[in-house]
Amino acid sequence: MPRKVRLGIMGLGTVGSGLVELIKKNARLIENKSDVKLEIVRALVLHKNKPRPLPPEQVTTNPNDLFEDKTIDLLVEVIGGIHPAKEYIVQAFDSGKDVVTANKAVLATHGDEIFNAASRNQKQIGFEASVCGGIPILRAISSGLIGNRVDELYGILNGTSNFVLTTMQEERVPFSDALAMAQSKGLAEADPTLDVNGMDAAHKLMILAELTFQTKMRFDDVIVEGIENLQPIDFETAESLGYVIRPTAVARRMEDRLDLRVHPCFVPKNHPLATVRNEFNAVIIRGDAIGEMVFHGKGAGSLPTASAVLSDIVEIARNPNSTPLWNPTRTIQSAPVELASRFYLRFPIYDRPGMIGMISTCLGAHGISITDAIARLTCTETNQGNVMIVIHSAPETEVRKALAEIQESGALNADPLSIRILEN
Amino acid sequence: MPRKVRLGIMGLGTVGSGLVELIKKNARLIENKSDVKLEIVRALVLHKNKPRPLPPEQVTTNPNDLFEDKTIDLLVEVIGGIHPAKEYIVQAFDSGKDVVTANKAVLATHGDEIFNAASRNQKQIGFEASVCGGIPILRAISSGLIGNRVDELYGILNGTSNFVLTTMQEERVPFSDALAMAQSKGLAEADPTLDVNGMDAAHKLMILAELTFQTKMRFDDVIVEGIENLQPIDFETAESLGYVIRPTAVARRMEDRLDLRVHPCFVPKNHPLATVRNEFNAVIIRGDAIGEMVFHGKGAGSLPTASAVLSDIVEIARNPNSTPLWNPTRTIQSAPVELASRFYLRFPIYDRPGMIGMISTCLGAHGISITDAIARLTCTETNQGNVMIVIHSAPETEVRKALAEIQESGALNADPLSIRILEN
Repeated sequence: MPRKVRLGIMGLGTVGSGLVELIKKNARLIENKSDVKLEIVRALVLHKNKPRPLPPEQVTTNPNDLFEDKTIDLLVEVIGGIHPAKEYIVQAFDSGKDVVTANKAVLATHGDEIFNAASRNQKQIGFEASVCGGIPILRAISSGLIGNRVDELYGILNGTSNFVLTTMQEERVPFSDALAMAQSKGLAEADPTLDVNGMDAAHKLMILAELTFQTKMRFDDVIVEGIENLQPIDFETAESLGYVIRPTAVARRMEDRLDLRVHPCFVPKNHPLATVRNEFNAVIIRGDAIGEMVFHGKGAGSLPTASAVLSDIVEIARNPNSTPLWNPTRTIQSAPVELASRFYLRFPIYDRPGMIGMISTCLGAHGISITDAIARLTCTETNQGNVMIVIHSAPETEVRKALAEIQESGALNADPLSIRILEN
Repeated sequence: MPRKVRLGIMGLGTVGSGLVELIKKNARLIENKSDVKLEIVRALVLHKNKPRPLPPEQVTTNPNDLFEDKTIDLLVEVIGGIHPAKEYIVQAFDSGKDVVTANKAVLATHGDEIFNAASRNQKQIGFEASVCGGIPILRAISSGLIGNRVDELYGILNGTSNFVLTTMQEERVPFSDALAMAQSKGLAEADPTLDVNGMDAAHKLMILAELTFQTKMRFDDVIVEGIENLQPIDFETAESLGYVIRPTAVARRMEDRLDLRVHPCFVPKNHPLATVRNEFNAVIIRGDAIGEMVFHGKGAGSLPTASAVLSDIVEIARNPNSTPLWNPTRTIQSAPVELASRFYLRFPIYDRPGMIGMISTCLGAHGISITDAIARLTCTETNQGNVMIVIHSAPETEVRKALAEIQESGALNADPLSIRILEN
């Protein structure tokens, strides 16, 4: 006899409709594979007059029609946003139902309250879909790789910014054109600020790091750099040196602290992250037993996200009395750590004699050693150009000090750019 | 209160010792993360006089000391081989214990008997470690991606042959030298036949395909080509055309049949498999909801395999009443299907006028169209050389017929080589 799960779905937007579609298409297959039989009882919507993938009698605008229905075992929250999603999730637990959510924002802001409500009612919560869409990364961290002490987790967590950088790399177009292409493909919001300034990736990194390192973080401790200042010449230089530029997010255990960063990065062409193109995401986990393990797939979109929601539903149905996946036992200070790194630096200059000399002398005075230096005139009329420099590994504070001194010299016509280089 | 699991370990070889080491190192961490407390009760060995990672009183040569110990909850089988591993596993179930095994051979040959014994005793079996070592791929197939209809699964399943091909590609050494390097690094057996002829990858492909497509396969239906005939000139040509050569394994759903193949393959440099280097493995799953999802990590070795064993132990402890992961409901005929593919072809020739003409005329007569043709003299004394040809997509039977005709012409001094080309 299959285990039957009766579902209520809160929200029939992109993800909710994708979920209904996927259940209709694959319910039989899922039952064959897992012995779990899924049945959609009712869905909550804001407006009843839109076309929906469910018959009208299964659609309601009254949330109590879901909470008070004793035949519903599990509520899927795919409304998004913080309110009323948070209140609905808590009420679902208090009504004796398990919950699966795809809502990163509500977990990042009200995680404690939500986990407490689940625990108080001895109900389960699934949130695989909240980070990296279809990639089963939370399950890998909390189950598949559980035997490992993880020292580092890094990857590409924002599909929009990865699409923009891949397009700039491969099509040699400016930032604004690449962003417009992402928007026309439906990959970026009308306001893509949180994607390109790194904040969206920082939120996801925080959830991944909390789960991986079993701790609670302060969002303000994440160092965030966006991708807005990259120019076609940076991608040309990267290419000529054997790199591509990717938007990376990094969480590193440094003795008793965690270092969390989001920034664009030079990635060697034969590194796994170099093949993560366009809107794809990837997470690399470095553990003491497995070494480096790469998970690479679609991090967003209707069906990939619905796939993650489904995996949580089936997991909860198969294991109704499982212990919770997330069990944060302590709070760690996520303190920025003094790191050394190789860097690519670009200095926007007025083209006149002695520029490379001045820049390299200043770097040298800070103990920074150069491996490549290229000067390029970009506009003969204004006499503007760039000096691009690649340095050996150097302490970040020294790099910052040198950049500040060079900027104070008055020789630059815009802020210098610094991008970390990932080693193979 | 943590859930306590008392373990018996059958075998203290490479994987067994790695498991003991990992438990000693990370047991506290695992308990914090999962609320599961692991305790090693006793280990079975063949000879008592070797140095062991456990105190002498915990080591026995008598398997009944494990079966009859009522305090042992779960037996880990890491003896390897078919007998007595199969008998021990069945007896473990009959003694009321769950089993975790890393033993691909015993599952491939006695899977039915083992799964029946588990089911009869209502006990669980974990076998994540049996395929692709530390990569949590079985769990991804049976849980993380369960909402998907999977149409294709492919990847690099044998670390030894991948090390050999990576070394030939990057160091430009002949096959025999690359294989010797793999052996000196402990990556290949003294007899590496099953690694380089593709049979090991075929066994793993069969287990992955059975789990993915919920069916039972006949091993003889897998088409297997080894890597023994590749020469440095093939890697040079691949490089010049923008490819690397990788040892691939492919399972494809073709309507109601499955097509299973193991063969070397030209892989575009920006494809995720191109960054899977040396002894690393990767599995790519193409599902209707997620699109392509890549899992890339260490497929063998003491600690990666122990990591997979540990993940099964914790999963069984967290979910003692879970439904089985593997539930084959039908038998599918894995029938080779007529496919079309792009190919790289190499013809070992005696260098004389008209060779490219003869070869390309013959290919043309079979409707095969050429994109690149290169002739290269390799030995002036014997007048031997090669003609390398890349063709547009063509039906495999036509390619085979054309190769046979060219070989019958008497112009070749050795068998022609054909390698499929993976499209991006």
